[in-house]
Amino acid sequence: MPSQELRIGLIGYGFMGRAHSNAYCQVNHFFDLAYRPVLQAACGRDAAAIHKFADQWGYRSVETDWRKLVERSDIDAIDICVPNNLHAEIAEVAAARGKMIFCEKPLAVDVHQGERMCQAVERAGVRNMVWYNYRRVPAVTLAKHLVASGRLGKIYHYRANFLQDWTISEDLPQGGTGLWRLDIAAAGSGVTGDLLAHCIDTALWINGPIADVSAMTETFIKQRKHNLTGRVEPVGIDDACAFLCHFANGSLGLFESTRYARGHKALYTFEINGQHASIRWDLHNLHRLEYFDHRDESAVRGWRDVHVTDAGGDHPYMNHWWVPGLQIGYEHSFIHQVADFLESLADNREAGPTFREALETQKVCEAVLRSAAQRQWVNV
Amino acid sequence: MPSQELRIGLIGYGFMGRAHSNAYCQVNHFFDLAYRPVLQAACGRDAAAIHKFADQWGYRSVETDWRKLVERSDIDAIDICVPNNLHAEIAEVAAARGKMIFCEKPLAVDVHQGERMCQAVERAGVRNMVWYNYRRVPAVTLAKHLVASGRLGKIYHYRANFLQDWTISEDLPQGGTGLWRLDIAAAGSGVTGDLLAHCIDTALWINGPIADVSAMTETFIKQRKHNLTGRVEPVGIDDACAFLCHFANGSLGLFESTRYARGHKALYTFEINGQHASIRWDLHNLHRLEYFDHRDESAVRGWRDVHVTDAGGDHPYMNHWWVPGLQIGYEHSFIHQVADFLESLADNREAGPTFREALETQKVCEAVLRSAAQRQWVNV
Amino acid sequence: MPSQELRIGLIGYGFMGRAHSNAYCQVNHFFDLAYRPVLQAACGRDAAAIHKFADQWGYRSVETDWRKLVERSDIDAIDICVPNNLHAEIAEVAAARGKMIFCEKPLAVDVHQGERMCQAVERAGVRNMVWYNYRRVPAVTLAKHLVASGRLGKIYHYRANFLQDWTISEDLPQGGTGLWRLDIAAAGSGVTGDLLAHCIDTALWINGPIADVSAMTETFIKQRKHNLTGRVEPVGIDDACAFLCHFANGSLGLFESTRYARGHKALYTFEINGQHASIRWDLHNLHRLEYFDHRDESAVRGWRDVHVTDAGGDHPYMNHWWVPGLQIGYEHSFIHQVADFLESLADNREAGPTFREALETQKVCEAVLRSAAQRQWVNV
Amino acid sequence: MPSQELRIGLIGYGFMGRAHSNAYCQVNHFFDLAYRPVLQAACGRDAAAIHKFADQWGYRSVETDWRKLVERSDIDAIDICVPNNLHAEIAEVAAARGKMIFCEKPLAVDVHQGERMCQAVERAGVRNMVWYNYRRVPAVTLAKHLVASGRLGKIYHYRANFLQDWTISEDLPQGGTGLWRLDIAAAGSGVTGDLLAHCIDTALWINGPIADVSAMTETFIKQRKHNLTGRVEPVGIDDACAFLCHFANGSLGLFESTRYARGHKALYTFEINGQHASIRWDLHNLHRLEYFDHRDESAVRGWRDVHVTDAGGDHPYMNHWWVPGLQIGYEHSFIHQVADFLESLADNREAGPTFREALETQKVCEAVLRSAAQRQWVNV
Repeated sequence: MPSQELRIGLIGYGFMGRAHSNAYCQVNHFFDLAYRPVLQAACGRDAAAIHKFADQWGYRSVETDWRKLVERSDIDAIDICVPNNLHAEIAEVAAARGKMIFCEKPLAVDVHQGERMCQAVERAGVRNMVWYNYRRVPAVTLAKHLVASGRLGKIYHYRANFLQDWTISEDLPQGGTGLWRLDIAAAGSGVTGDLLAHCIDTALWINGPIADVSAMTETFIKQRKHNLTGRVEPVGIDDACAFLCHFANGSLGLFESTRYARGHKALYTFEINGQHASIRWDLHNLHRLEYFDHRDESAVRGWRDVHVTDAGGDHPYMNHWWVPGLQIGYEHSFIHQVADFLESLADNREAGPTFREALETQKVCEAVLRSAAQRQWVNV
Repeated sequence: MPSQELRIGLIGYGFMGRAHSNAYCQVNHFFDLAYRPVLQAACGRDAAAIHKFADQWGYRSVETDWRKLVERSDIDAIDICVPNNLHAEIAEVAAARGKMIFCEKPLAVDVHQGERMCQAVERAGVRNMVWYNYRRVPAVTLAKHLVASGRLGKIYHYRANFLQDWTISEDLPQGGTGLWRLDIAAAGSGVTGDLLAHCIDTALWINGPIADVSAMTETFIKQRKHNLTGRVEPVGIDDACAFLCHFANGSLGLFESTRYARGHKALYTFEINGQHASIRWDLHNLHRLEYFDHRDESAVRGWRDVHVTDAGGDHPYMNHWWVPGLQIGYEHSFIHQVADFLESLADNREAGPTFREALETQKVCEAVLRSAAQRQWVNV
Repeated sequence: MPSQELRIGLIGYGFMGRAHSNAYCQVNHFFDLAYRPVLQAACGRDAAAIHKFADQWGYRSVETDWRKLVERSDIDAIDICVPNNLHAEIAEVAAARGKMIFCEKPLAVDVHQGERMCQAVERAGVRNMVWYNYRRVPAVTLAKHLVASGRLGKIYHYRANFLQDWTISEDLPQGGTGLWRLDIAAAGSGVTGDLLAHCIDTALWINGPIADVSAMTETFIKQRKHNLTGRVEPVGIDDACAFLCHFANGSLGLFESTRYARGHKALYTFEINGQHASIRWDLHNLHRLEYFDHRDESAVRGWRDVHVTDAGGDHPYMNHWWVPGLQIGYEHSFIHQVADFLESLADNREAGPTFREALETQKVCEAVLRSAAQRQWVNV
Repeated sequence: MPSQELRIGLIGYGFMGRAHSNAYCQVNHFFDLAYRPVLQAACGRDAAAIHKFADQWGYRSVETDWRKLVERSDIDAIDICVPNNLHAEIAEVAAARGKMIFCEKPLAVDVHQGERMCQAVERAGVRNMVWYNYRRVPAVTLAKHLVASGRLGKIYHYRANFLQDWTISEDLPQGGTGLWRLDIAAAGSGVTGDLLAHCIDTALWINGPIADVSAMTETFIKQRKHNLTGRVEPVGIDDACAFLCHFANGSLGLFESTRYARGHKALYTFEINGQHASIRWDLHNLHRLEYFDHRDESAVRGWRDVHVTDAGGDHPYMNHWWVPGLQIGYEHSFIHQVADFLESLADNREAGPTFREALETQKVCEAVLRSAAQRQWVNV
């Protein structure tokens, strides 16, 4: 085990709290690194719940007030896993205390807050990172490498979907534990910030900046019981969002997300069409990268179904795991992100996406929502 | 063989001339009908070519001038298989001569021409039909039945693609035999009229009217050699087109077509998401209808891969062909359309899509092109 | 239309009678050939039924006794589409009359009969062919070319399945019209001659001779009502058959067929594993040939899903049909076989499989049935 | 964290040593259990290597002699992760010391050794378990539940494959670290014990006992350099093995495994056909269970592609992980096995497969190898 510790202070203990804690526990079992994350403190307002969580994951201590946590001198990095509307304030205070910051996505509820967060970490000179974890799914990382290598040639089309079906019932309430993503006050938006933000982050990373967008959003169920007030209240979030766009490189983009697509649990897919080759991926078949190369001999040309599980070095991250053919899971993308961060720390490099990079995604999201509201094309 | 003849006069002998001739030859072998199409005359300007074609298919006579053909009293129905810009005039003259008219899609190059064609056939009281053949692919017909039966419940999303990759090379010329689809003068538009028109026809048929659209188009290669002039000339067609839309029933639509999607030969796909169930289909797997029903027992719920080849009556048209598991091909959709038309003739019903129905697709295409040109939402 | 006629006398008007008649009608529409099949006479014992059939397909005349048909001097070729137990006698008499013979598969009910048939056609010097139609599915023909070219290298494994599920119900009777395949007296065997014979023909064609086999068969439902006697009688056919084998080239074979595999309508599949590359195909996705080449660059190596629909010449037969991406169906394999036969006639070559080739498949079938009965390895 | 410790002594630190250590580290993070595994000691002959391993995983101590380890009083359970030929002796000694034993599969190199191991643990009355981990892949566990519930009805067919392609090169040596599976002395057999044993374990678990087998094996490359001797030596293992069998319930079985199937990394698949329904699964799509139910309405009947990731309780184990649509990996099957074992410990039940159950798989393997050697059917 490496002797250099990186002492983590985690705020929030929900779904993402578990995913990040797991990454900290697992990373040194599978990666040889100079640093070792230490579960120094977990923070949550519900004392009983945060104690239970801390015990399950082996956190050394517990806080119930994030302001106390960020004051502690035995914490190197703050990990923000709370609803979107709380990101900015925590990040600003933590940065001022000199902490590194790992923040769940989306960066913030709007560009204004996101910009403040960027300025805070840059002013303080602290390392910062946003958990756009899908970049580190091996098949997605491979897609990035293939495009960056130029083998697709000029890019003509980029399309992405993130389809779910879990909010179709009218009986589902909004707000509160487990459902804050349906509450406009906590989430800032609906599928745009929750799901499309992932699609946009991947797209910007692989295909470069987006110039302008034309979007539509829809809220299919107009009011739902609110768990925090107990009353039926208007639904403020977007249930579905789709947009057309132009990338700066001249390619056309088409993005769609919804929570009303029956049959799709978490179907994040993207496809990229270039002059010579095309790529597509989908989250439900995590390890499959489909690749078509027009330069293949015509008689046997076809989409190649690449099972991205080779351990020999050609398939990103997979040399750290098992043997060819054996898969890893969703949570491993977070392990990879921590591994990359710890390596970058040792090498004094940056590991993306930083707050500043994530702000670009925020800008696209905001343009999308504005375009939908105004029914017109909007420049990013 | 039925004794009642329907004497066909075919204009044009390209790809569609073959597909239609095949349908006329085959329909009575597989369907029991009151009528029998007779290949009375084939018409084309190139005398040698049309004679060769007529001989191969068994046409009884040949014409080199369509005006002579439509004057002949031994012709019951005119079949228009020539470039889009010639549809209107032929249809108007043929209608005035009292001929039934079968016209290739899209109906016309614009709504204005299409409206004139509708008025012509309605004034003359002649039967008319447009070859939106994909309605009669058994899996597509089944999709229509499933939606019409209400089993999907409220529809939330409709999305369709028609992706090809055959015009990426800069060396491909535009215009003339085999390439008139790339010539704006002959085709009226690019992928919008050629490919999206199919997607729109199916969508209107299955999911009802479209209210408004926001579109973008792109012409990736700006100039190409023109076969008719021999000169390099600006390319007037759209190489790619995508649009967002609202259906009148409140569902959201997303459509895309391109000829620059490497790896896709003729990938026409659609997916429909309803409250209770979803459907998807793709032309490359002609006989597969994927169906998801949320009412299935949760533990074994999943997309069902329905091989639409049952001969027992549940799968449209398939009782006319082979045994379960054995497939038919692309050209059979035309045979089915002729069969339906001949049945409707005997029963004195209409068999769609009529010119009037096809005009609705034309209106959407025109709104799409206008929206793209003006960069704004356009009502249909 | 070519002026040289090949006058067909068809015996039997069931499923295969239709498939062959269709091939004769269609072949000259799509292939440029020196010969033209003419539907000279159709023969069946039920006068009303054979007249109806002849009218539907355009046969010029009708016979109700096959012995009269083979005596007619205006018939060039006899096409045998009757149950297996009748093949031998008809073939022997027809050969003696100097007719070409096209015989449905399997060649005969046993090797003894098959050998007599071979001697008859060879003695008479008449052209002969067996309808192992799957050889002419474009994807299967392509598989043959790929293996023959040597690009797979040494072959290690060949496996094939033919899975159906249509006889699971105990209420299904055996024997008589439409069900003679379940009657041991008419069929000679169950799935072995009906389905495995196809798998074996393809295997011998692509991978060479089989040396020895170890088989098991099963009859799940031991007695069924017999349509010809009206009584419940023992079932003599094999409902399922599987066998291991060694090919002469050193590769291992594994074959299985059953009519008790729920969910499979007509799932004929094969897979071939060679030193450098592998191939697989399945009848439910007729146009898909999956191809894996280990020599591909490791990072993007995967099974290629080849949509065998290219019209440019690389995909067998497809230059005669539509455009890339558009599929043909099951019945086209018969059209291709007729086309190849007519070409071979003009060129004075042979077009396989001949009776002599088909006898090799018969020998394997017989060895399989003997191995199952004796529970031991049997040399072919 | 539970206070009750289960102190593990691990022998062997290769691939399986990692997989098991991971399971011990992870199980209490995701399962609420009465017991907590403690990494008490890791044992390996190479002192430097075992220290490095112990440090990486957090083992409290190290041994270089397994005999010392099993004498230690601070060890509750011995985990055997060494080559097959060493299982029996370690298990016998450890049982005599009263240790619980977790043994890698296959149980032993032959039935004789396996029987001795069973007697040892039964005499000592110690808990024992064999790591046939695939039983705990959620989709496989679901398959077991579906068959056990009777919803498939009478079973007709069971078929399984385990296909790999990693030993095709003639340059690959046999024996020694990482390659002992190719050395007959260490492994006892080739693909039969390594891969088919998995298929057989699953089959016996789901479909009950196998009565008799007819098998063939092949060693494609007859001699390879041996890493332990440095000399080219005959290859004693089977590179490929296939067998036919009858299950006691009357269904037919077909099994195949090879390391010479180009394009397959670790393609473990099985398919079960019953009277009413069928199931199939493949390891490369770990979370997909395909399910066909003939009782579905005919028009929309098809194979259901069940993404076994629901967290609501219907999909085994998945309520312990993330949200619907998000996958877990290969190593999680080991975590599930540990979780089940720890629960059974608390409840004083057994958690399979025990040595005695695993011996049944050993018996089938031995019958398979004997059948192949003798070229005849062999009763199990």
